[in-house]
Amino acid sequence: MAGSIKDQVAIIGVGCTKFGDNFDQSFEDMLAEAAFAAFADARIEPERVEAAWLGTFSPYAGNGKASVSLADALRLYGKPITRVENYCATGTDAFRNAAMAVASGMYDVALVAGVEKLKDRPMRGLGWESGHPYQHDGLTAPGVFALSANRYFHQFGGGRETLAKVSVKNHHNGALNPKAHFQMEVSEEQVLKAPIVAWPFGLFDCCPTTDGAAAAVICRADMARQFRDDYVLVKGLGLAVTSGRPWYDPANDYIGFASTQAASAEAYRMAGIRNPAAEIDFAEVHDCFTWTEITNYEDLGFCRKGEGVQFIGEGRSALAGDLPVNPSGGLKSFGHPIGASGVRMIYEVVTQLRGHAGARQVREAELGLVHNLGGPGSVACVIVLGRQ
Amino acid sequence: MAGSIKDQVAIIGVGCTKFGDNFDQSFEDMLAEAAFAAFADARIEPERVEAAWLGTFSPYAGNGKASVSLADALRLYGKPITRVENYCATGTDAFRNAAMAVASGMYDVALVAGVEKLKDRPMRGLGWESGHPYQHDGLTAPGVFALSANRYFHQFGGGRETLAKVSVKNHHNGALNPKAHFQMEVSEEQVLKAPIVAWPFGLFDCCPTTDGAAAAVICRADMARQFRDDYVLVKGLGLAVTSGRPWYDPANDYIGFASTQAASAEAYRMAGIRNPAAEIDFAEVHDCFTWTEITNYEDLGFCRKGEGVQFIGEGRSALAGDLPVNPSGGLKSFGHPIGASGVRMIYEVVTQLRGHAGARQVREAELGLVHNLGGPGSVACVIVLGRQ
Repeated sequence: MAGSIKDQVAIIGVGCTKFGDNFDQSFEDMLAEAAFAAFADARIEPERVEAAWLGTFSPYAGNGKASVSLADALRLYGKPITRVENYCATGTDAFRNAAMAVASGMYDVALVAGVEKLKDRPMRGLGWESGHPYQHDGLTAPGVFALSANRYFHQFGGGRETLAKVSVKNHHNGALNPKAHFQMEVSEEQVLKAPIVAWPFGLFDCCPTTDGAAAAVICRADMARQFRDDYVLVKGLGLAVTSGRPWYDPANDYIGFASTQAASAEAYRMAGIRNPAAEIDFAEVHDCFTWTEITNYEDLGFCRKGEGVQFIGEGRSALAGDLPVNPSGGLKSFGHPIGASGVRMIYEVVTQLRGHAGARQVREAELGLVHNLGGPGSVACVIVLGRQ
Repeated sequence: MAGSIKDQVAIIGVGCTKFGDNFDQSFEDMLAEAAFAAFADARIEPERVEAAWLGTFSPYAGNGKASVSLADALRLYGKPITRVENYCATGTDAFRNAAMAVASGMYDVALVAGVEKLKDRPMRGLGWESGHPYQHDGLTAPGVFALSANRYFHQFGGGRETLAKVSVKNHHNGALNPKAHFQMEVSEEQVLKAPIVAWPFGLFDCCPTTDGAAAAVICRADMARQFRDDYVLVKGLGLAVTSGRPWYDPANDYIGFASTQAASAEAYRMAGIRNPAAEIDFAEVHDCFTWTEITNYEDLGFCRKGEGVQFIGEGRSALAGDLPVNPSGGLKSFGHPIGASGVRMIYEVVTQLRGHAGARQVREAELGLVHNLGGPGSVACVIVLGRQ
């Protein structure tokens, strides 16, 4: 059974670029902007960073060069920099590895950065050039998640109208967020009338292709107050990997993700959380497709399996609900530069916990959750963050 | 300044496939063979593994699929698996992250695996398809290292005859090693008469293109004796990254690698080593090209800058020398499946420290060093391992 590093690591600074079509910024430009914003936020000089972790999924798209590109972007030479890649959970897993390194005593202050440059050389549906197993089996990313969405609605009811509620909510939140890729409201009618990508997903059920970077500075919790009073503590960490080809797995029920269930169980155990629906105040979760957010409610324990339709329908995950989900606008509206997303979610949760989220501020934000889901639902990473 | 996790992590099992043209084995086949060998060596059931790290550089070459491919190869489902990539230092950096995670208290027992499948879809000289910055600047991997080799010989003397001595030595050692890609002696004359790849490097100065996998099981040092008495302790860890395009750096002297110097300084500080030439008993170092081994002697502190020519000339790094280097045969002879190499070096050092290396056994092996060098000399990782 896994141990715990609860309350041993603090986040003292966060930074994030505007997400969107960043044609005017290189991979390194975005890294530098996000990292220097995090340094300023942590009130440290860059030299204070002893080690860094870079989360990036496809460093060869858009000329990314992994660890050395972070070194060159920041002139961070002669120090340890690790690149972590874990499908769409890349950013959160980079953070997890950095947190364990700080907790081990190896480093006092570390940087985590996530970045992806997708617009200059789009991934074209996770196709052959990426070598992704989806393609080998004739599937695309929307197709994989659509299979599960259809099975889910067959078993529990709900349908495209349910999905539209998620899209409307997340676009509403994104419209309040000056860093979001799409800052526009959409109506349920617009969502329902959009072109179909893979039934039941229409265009507004799918997250966009986005450029962006985000960063966080972490340190030993016992020295955090040297930097700022309102630091945030790492309460729980969990990562779980299942099969890369779940459609060959006879145990796959197509109504949820065992990866999210296992990762959140590990994070909750470390954080000492027994009733997540009551204890978690808000969450940034992986809404690569609108249905994914619905199953996330259930797999994360915010409600029981099959009750996600009701959860969104009753407005419980809205900004004013009892458990706001994706106050940032989510992947749907904020965008999804793969390796950046997890770190961007940490940026959002820290901003909310500090009470600095402005028009999209969640009430009584004391314990927030971050959730990434990667591959065909095969990799999940959950991070629980809290005020001291 | 960085802290220390000296003596907190133990290696209790290692495994390694035969390296070579493994056309009959998939990426997953090799992972499974290496990991199950390590489980057997550690005398544990696979279920005992709480978390895993996978080092692989080019998961899209040869249909590798990163974290999920380790999960599928081992049926290691529902557990945390991180993929680390750091150029040719991928395997050692995966080990470093796993060691810090165990030292943090998060996990008691963890698996590190390194793998690369290069023969089915060769990388073709780190060309455009890999998006490597070499190619953007008109350089290949041999070309990059050849630039430095020429500058080095211009400044310190030596030449192709010096390089040939490294090749002869490493082929001699590899001929004693049943898992090496090339198990054949070469003569100095053969090396010197081989076709030139990039002056001063001929064919026998360059490591080959190889398939392979290696694995290690690590645990908290205080529980290592439960598994086996002859466990090995992690004494020092260091990683350092410099510019990805050193030829644009006016401070680059082309006679050595600042990355290796910084990474070894960090590892020696943690291990408490002041005089590496006297204290390190043997080493597995990154001889991607024969000249690289010569500069490694100097950058690792086995001799002073410029004395590497003498170091190889006097046979000090031979199996019977006072500081044997690459008793395994090195990258030159054992092969270099990128992400596997660092873990394979750990396999060799552990085997030597146990006294189980047979015909290639080093005398009085109590403290061994592992060194990986990645990119155009931009990433170095150093690990010091010792008997208790």
